Amino acid sequence: MTIDWSPIREAIEEGRNFLITSHVNPEADAIGSMVALARFLQGLSQSVRMVSPSAIPESCRFLDPAGEIVLFDPSRADALLRAADVVFIVDLSCWSQLGSFADPLKESSARRICIDHHQDPDEDIASVLIRDPSAAAAGVLIYELIRDLDGDMTPAIAEALYAAIITDTGSFRFANTDARALRIGADLVERGVRPELVYQKVFENRKWASAKLLAPVFTTLGKSVNGKLAWISATRKMLTETGANQGDMDGFIDQIRAIRGVEVCVFFKEADEGVVRVSLRSNGSVDVQRFAQSLGGGGHTRAAGLTVEGTVEEAIGKVIAGLESLVR
Amino acid sequence: MTIDWSPIREAIEEGRNFLITSHVNPEADAIGSMVALARFLQGLSQSVRMVSPSAIPESCRFLDPAGEIVLFDPSRADALLRAADVVFIVDLSCWSQLGSFADPLKESSARRICIDHHQDPDEDIASVLIRDPSAAAAGVLIYELIRDLDGDMTPAIAEALYAAIITDTGSFRFANTDARALRIGADLVERGVRPELVYQKVFENRKWASAKLLAPVFTTLGKSVNGKLAWISATRKMLTETGANQGDMDGFIDQIRAIRGVEVCVFFKEADEGVVRVSLRSNGSVDVQRFAQSLGGGGHTRAAGLTVEGTVEEAIGKVIAGLESLVR
Repeated sequence: MTIDWSPIREAIEEGRNFLITSHVNPEADAIGSMVALARFLQGLSQSVRMVSPSAIPESCRFLDPAGEIVLFDPSRADALLRAADVVFIVDLSCWSQLGSFADPLKESSARRICIDHHQDPDEDIASVLIRDPSAAAAGVLIYELIRDLDGDMTPAIAEALYAAIITDTGSFRFANTDARALRIGADLVERGVRPELVYQKVFENRKWASAKLLAPVFTTLGKSVNGKLAWISATRKMLTETGANQGDMDGFIDQIRAIRGVEVCVFFKEADEGVVRVSLRSNGSVDVQRFAQSLGGGGHTRAAGLTVEGTVEEAIGKVIAGLESLVR
Repeated sequence: MTIDWSPIREAIEEGRNFLITSHVNPEADAIGSMVALARFLQGLSQSVRMVSPSAIPESCRFLDPAGEIVLFDPSRADALLRAADVVFIVDLSCWSQLGSFADPLKESSARRICIDHHQDPDEDIASVLIRDPSAAAAGVLIYELIRDLDGDMTPAIAEALYAAIITDTGSFRFANTDARALRIGADLVERGVRPELVYQKVFENRKWASAKLLAPVFTTLGKSVNGKLAWISATRKMLTETGANQGDMDGFIDQIRAIRGVEVCVFFKEADEGVVRVSLRSNGSVDVQRFAQSLGGGGHTRAAGLTVEGTVEEAIGKVIAGLESLVR
């Protein structure tokens, strides 16, 4: 797909004050894309501000060392938007992903430009909607924009884009990894990016509590159907005792997904008294989206989720019994 | 560095019967490089055999589905070597890395060709020694050889080389990742390699026992010096109870290395009664090679190892006390 970047070129030439935003719960594809675009516009001597509808995670702070990205403050939405004539929306194309920033932005008169790689956009999100779901990351699109506009790919921009791309491709290991992403990675490394350092900053930033939590959670490791079905669980008590929170369990399910022979795996997380959030992963042999939907959840074929009311033991009983009939 | 491949071109033109070998304890860079080179030579209608000085790990079987790589059998060394006029030695350049195959090979009259990316070769390993330590993997060199000789980069060759490269670069995340490796990766993906499938085969092939072992091992998680120093340990009892072996603990130390603030981490493994093998990792602030050497071990600045006589508790006491004075 060849993207026509000319509407953006024109908007940049015509604009005076730019605002850049991204989705709630941003990761390094969101933050890296925002920062790279901001640095590019600043290089053109434009005035740029960045706003995020939710807090920047610790692992992304290195991309914005001076703390230029401000947290969206609804009470100051008017002032923020009055000062902007162009708003860039990157790495999302659904109003719902903008959180509390969605309504003020809809009402604003600023010109909206969206650059995204997700499916099923809200068509009214922007007057200029550049969308390419085949791009592995929003950072791929920002890279191509900057190249198309003959921008200066500075070290800061290169690092931000590299962080964006390795985040969404899992360091070039997910199914969205393509020659386009790898080739851009090569170009960014040639411009001075140190892959191991960016990887460490993005991925190796685990909290002590997360490592502490491995022992109790993996004590619960269970299996069925000759090991084709595997699960782990976490109670609120485990989190309290280790000082961990829900986010500290990111990646735990991947450790059972990687077991030889496992076709479907499940992580049961006690979210509240009598409420269990259930994450499902499949190697493709079972459609976990369909299973999750049958219990009121949703997701994708290989990754889905649902919520069960009851204790962790009750949730395990219910979900595993259902999956056992599918995994045979 | 531009490599002159003409000696290999000539050897291939002159040779009749080729034998390919690699190092002891082969991983997918060794196996993938052997298989890719074998397929390339077979495509030129050459007779090729592959021999390994030690067993092929389960995770590499997909690269040799028909089991063409034979395990070196010292009692049949004469017959094996008499039938070969050219022996390719790939992904190693030290005699010691050939195990029991080293001596018979030294005595053989077959022409030896070595293609490697390691430092400090034994210069007498081969009459043609192609060595480039800047190459991220031996697979990078085999790729360049095949391209230079206008070989047909078949799907089987592309997959073998992709597996080789992601093995040695940790899916493009280690410090050896460069634009050259990423660009070759892009080319191989363009030729049909599916990155997520190769990744799964190479890296997501964990034994059930390895996942079981996480709980007892992470129960031992300890820290010192405000969390700059962290360690875990494994006893033989843990391995017996979970059915795991030493190899099933690969990657465990990376899970503590990835903790925010950890500068040096240590994994104590009871190898035998009164014998503890100690693995050390550093973020670079402490030279663990020097520390390991002071206790009779060795390695690199950021990854080293040593052996301590005594119980696991005694090893922890000794090693941690020594490191505490360095990590401050």
